[in-house]
Amino acid sequence: MQATPVAPPDASPGRLMAAEMAEQPAVLRRLLAEGAPRIREVAARIAARRPRFVLLTARGTSDNAALYGKYLLEILVGMPCGLTSMSTTTAYAAKQDLADCLVITVSQSGGSPDLVASTKAARAGGAITLAVTNNADSPLAEAAEFHIDVLAGPERALPATKTYTAELLALYLFAEGLRGGDGAAAAARLPELATRVLARQEEIRQLAARYRFAERMVLTSRGYGYPTAKEAALKLMETSYIPALSYSGADLLHGPLAMVDNIFPVIAIVTDGRGGEALQPVLDRLKDRGADLVVIGPSAQVAAASAGFALPTDGVREELQPILEIIPLQLLAYEVTLARGQDPDAPRALAKVTETR
Amino acid sequence: MQATPVAPPDASPGRLMAAEMAEQPAVLRRLLAEGAPRIREVAARIAARRPRFVLLTARGTSDNAALYGKYLLEILVGMPCGLTSMSTTTAYAAKQDLADCLVITVSQSGGSPDLVASTKAARAGGAITLAVTNNADSPLAEAAEFHIDVLAGPERALPATKTYTAELLALYLFAEGLRGGDGAAAAARLPELATRVLARQEEIRQLAARYRFAERMVLTSRGYGYPTAKEAALKLMETSYIPALSYSGADLLHGPLAMVDNIFPVIAIVTDGRGGEALQPVLDRLKDRGADLVVIGPSAQVAAASAGFALPTDGVREELQPILEIIPLQLLAYEVTLARGQDPDAPRALAKVTETR
Repeated sequence: MQATPVAPPDASPGRLMAAEMAEQPAVLRRLLAEGAPRIREVAARIAARRPRFVLLTARGTSDNAALYGKYLLEILVGMPCGLTSMSTTTAYAAKQDLADCLVITVSQSGGSPDLVASTKAARAGGAITLAVTNNADSPLAEAAEFHIDVLAGPERALPATKTYTAELLALYLFAEGLRGGDGAAAAARLPELATRVLARQEEIRQLAARYRFAERMVLTSRGYGYPTAKEAALKLMETSYIPALSYSGADLLHGPLAMVDNIFPVIAIVTDGRGGEALQPVLDRLKDRGADLVVIGPSAQVAAASAGFALPTDGVREELQPILEIIPLQLLAYEVTLARGQDPDAPRALAKVTETR
Repeated sequence: MQATPVAPPDASPGRLMAAEMAEQPAVLRRLLAEGAPRIREVAARIAARRPRFVLLTARGTSDNAALYGKYLLEILVGMPCGLTSMSTTTAYAAKQDLADCLVITVSQSGGSPDLVASTKAARAGGAITLAVTNNADSPLAEAAEFHIDVLAGPERALPATKTYTAELLALYLFAEGLRGGDGAAAAARLPELATRVLARQEEIRQLAARYRFAERMVLTSRGYGYPTAKEAALKLMETSYIPALSYSGADLLHGPLAMVDNIFPVIAIVTDGRGGEALQPVLDRLKDRGADLVVIGPSAQVAAASAGFALPTDGVREELQPILEIIPLQLLAYEVTLARGQDPDAPRALAKVTETR
């Protein structure tokens, strides 16, 4: 463990979450150095089996990582993908023919009984099974034929942060490996860029003041940034309890836009690339309606919005930007929660391993 | 058109939505009588092609219908399914090998350019393509190899109601047809049961009073009822503008439960069957936390909750219950909106055919 200890002193609210957010550059560096060769090997072995369809299974934060994996596999690898509706297996005992299917289950703890059960069912149904976890000794890692360890070190905070970015990078390296590439070179700058983003916590603190009294929020994006919108909404809800709705920009136009007016703040995640371009008409529409629009993205987009956080994305491939763009939003959830007098480490009603069945 | 004209007189708010909700028994009856043979034929022709994997594509209300279709195809037919992330095609131009894939696109109007483009791309990629629309002359019906008409008649209200229940029934008949069954017999009682639900509008009006001043809501379910939770949340948002969050019961336990306390009302859709059973631990947890819990489901579940609406589900297969259980929630969105002094027919910022690309 090479944690970078910039966390506040021991008894303060949010110290666990702060410490784990700060560890992210070290975690990404470790995954690139120690994890990448093993991930490449797993990808090569799976590629040799020629899977034709991919199903991804996860819950909570890991479900947002799985959605990112879906975009990667569809766009970079050209494989049709779906996200599993787990109850079809665990509640309805559906029998599916999963020959030629790769079933990827993503879970920080690897301990949730429903994920273990659905992985066993997939394997029995003929699928190639891969578990992506932060615990190589977990029941899920055991149940799957293949395993990738995201090497994030023990996660103690209830809001998952470092395991999310580690899962994204592991899925990226896996997708690149499936198509015979390396990926580690393109991702090499991420640890340093993540450090730069983390150093700008004061900017986020100022942005957080904007939401201190917010009663609801909308987060939106398109393409690779959409999982970021979903994960940021989850993070805000589970720490600050602000109802945060997330929509792909296209879905926002199909109904929920009716709610968005100048008392309903919007955060848009604008990736520098085709996803950001596809989001532009939505941003224009939001501005027309006088929405309070905060942008996480390239500096030109931030300058055109009500406020925002400019990401250092120059020269970073669009598909890698989600690994950076969630970090200011993790910080935002943390700072908003502190500003509201609550403790990001002590969400009500949450347990670290959720035993859904 | 055999509309049952129980709508309020012509100039009153919500008259279009009221008229179309009231048409639902007639629409279901027509689809069973006139649509079912054609759907069975399409299903038989597609089954003969032996698709192995299904992708469903849609937006807005139709996306919730597509999710229902995903449950049907996975559970009843045993085919692995995914919901498409449309931007992978329209923004990123991903080239996918879709041989052996059935791509089903669901759209009321059949007119959205992105759905037409993604259907053409799927067909070019080797997929079997099926369009499920309410307009046999639409560009989408033209672009797909196969077409199913849901026969709901012109929809003029902005909040889609009758086309949603028609899409559900069409997808049910299609899934039954794929496995060589009929389906129409099992669904024969639905029109009469829908009429009985619609006749209880006064009960819903009383329930609506509860949410007149609500600033946020959570809707939850599991299994077949989960698309209902999502569709009800969309309906509430696009008519009343109440931020309504929807979660599968399992996902609710993974984070957002932190927000749910006695000032955050919850509506649970409890199907009579395995989905409802799987939801039980979530209902227990919500009651422990003192949540205001309203249940749409079997009368015993309603009696154990803060309030609710007892559905006539005796003898109705679990997979068909979603066609009934959305109706009280459509009525609720309508009544809450009227109670708040707004017009369900005039959502801000919405167009009937949303031209996302």
